[in-house]
Amino acid sequence: MKKYGRSRRNSKKDTKVKIPKAAGQRLSFYLRELERLHNLETETISSEQIGEILGITSSQVRKDLALFGQFGLPGLGYNVAGLATELRKIIGRDKVWNVMLVGCGNLGNALARHKSFKVSGFNIAAAFDSSESKTGKRLGHLKIQPMNQIPSAIKKKGISIAIIAVPAPSAQKIADNLAKAGIKGILNFAPISLTVPKNVKLVNVDLAVQLEQLIFSMARS
Amino acid sequence: MKKYGRSRRNSKKDTKVKIPKAAGQRLSFYLRELERLHNLETETISSEQIGEILGITSSQVRKDLALFGQFGLPGLGYNVAGLATELRKIIGRDKVWNVMLVGCGNLGNALARHKSFKVSGFNIAAAFDSSESKTGKRLGHLKIQPMNQIPSAIKKKGISIAIIAVPAPSAQKIADNLAKAGIKGILNFAPISLTVPKNVKLVNVDLAVQLEQLIFSMARS
Repeated sequence: MKKYGRSRRNSKKDTKVKIPKAAGQRLSFYLRELERLHNLETETISSEQIGEILGITSSQVRKDLALFGQFGLPGLGYNVAGLATELRKIIGRDKVWNVMLVGCGNLGNALARHKSFKVSGFNIAAAFDSSESKTGKRLGHLKIQPMNQIPSAIKKKGISIAIIAVPAPSAQKIADNLAKAGIKGILNFAPISLTVPKNVKLVNVDLAVQLEQLIFSMARS
Repeated sequence: MKKYGRSRRNSKKDTKVKIPKAAGQRLSFYLRELERLHNLETETISSEQIGEILGITSSQVRKDLALFGQFGLPGLGYNVAGLATELRKIIGRDKVWNVMLVGCGNLGNALARHKSFKVSGFNIAAAFDSSESKTGKRLGHLKIQPMNQIPSAIKKKGISIAIIAVPAPSAQKIADNLAKAGIKGILNFAPISLTVPKNVKLVNVDLAVQLEQLIFSMARS
C-alpha cells in the first residue's frame, strides 16, 4: 500500500515548529469530523467541505494542516481515512492513554462513566479519593484507592495524566502532589486556577467559562 | 463618581462589530483574572501584566479589549474593578441567568452541585429527566420534572439556556425539542455533535477534545 502523507521521520521533525494554540484545538475538530465521515464511508473530502462543516475558511483548513505536513492532493482533496490516521498520530491518539481520576464524588462518577473517554482512547485506569467512606468501594471496574497510593499507581500503570475532580479548596494541594509524583498532564475540573510546574501541562475545564461563551454568542446573534 | 470606560450607548453599537471567536473566549479569561486581582485588592493593572499572567502578548490584550471600547489610560493601565464591570456587561454576566438542566444522572447531579455555576451568575432553575424513577425526586433545592414540562418551565421561569447532560443517543431529539420550545442557547455535554437551528447557539463541552488538547501539548513540551 502506498504510504499516505509525509513520512513519520518528517513528522517528528515538524513537531519542533511552533503551533498556534487555536490550530492545535482545530486538529481535534478536524479529526472528529473525519472520523464521522469515515463512519459514513466517505473516501475523500476537500478543504472547502471541511471548512464548510466547521464554519471556517478553506484556506484556514489548508494552513492548519500544512503546519504538520503535506496531506492532500490538488484537485483530489484529502483521503478521509488517511488524514484521520495522520491526525491521530499528530495529536497522540494513536495509542491508549491510561488516566487517573482524583476525586470520586458526583463529578468523578460521571466522568468515570462518560463514554466520551473510552471511545477516544482514554482509559481511566485508577481512581482515588481522600474520603475513607469512599476508598475501597468500587467505581465501575475500579476500586477507589486512598490518595497515598497515587505515586505507586503512576509507576505501576504507566499513568501520565490525571483528572482532578475534587472541590476547589483541595485542588491545588492535589496538583502539587501529582506533579511531585511525576504526572505530566492535568485536566482540571475544579473551579479554581491552578499553578503547576513548567514540565506539567494543564488544561482547565471551566464550566462557567463555557456558559459565558454561550451567552456571549447569544448576545451577538 | 466618574464614569469608567465608554458609555453604555457606545457599547451597544459596538456589539455589531464582528468579534473573532478566540478574542471572545479570552474575555472570559481576562474577567477571571480581574476578579481574582480585585479580591486581592489590586487597583490597576497594565496590559503587560495581564498578558504575562495569561501567557499572551500585551498587544494581543490591548487589541482584544479595543474591540469593545477604550478602557485603559496610557501609562496608568486599567482600573481592575472598572474593567471587570465593563467585561461583565459585554459578556452578559451583569445579570443572573436562569438555566435548565436536562438529564439528572451522575453528570447532571455533579453539574447541579458544581459551585462554578452559582459563583458565576448562573442559576440552575429547573431540572428534567425522562426516567420515571427520577422525576418527582429532589436534586438540591429542585424537584426533577418530566420532560413534557420543559415548554412551560421556559415560559414561567424565563429560561433561555439549557444544559444537556443525557446519553448521546437521546441528545439530538432533546436539542430539537428545546429549540422548538424556545431555548436560545445549549451547553451540550453529550458526546455527540448536535445540529441546531440558526437562532440557537450551541457550545459543546467535549471531554475527549479537552484531553486531546492536553496530550497534544504534552507531546510538544
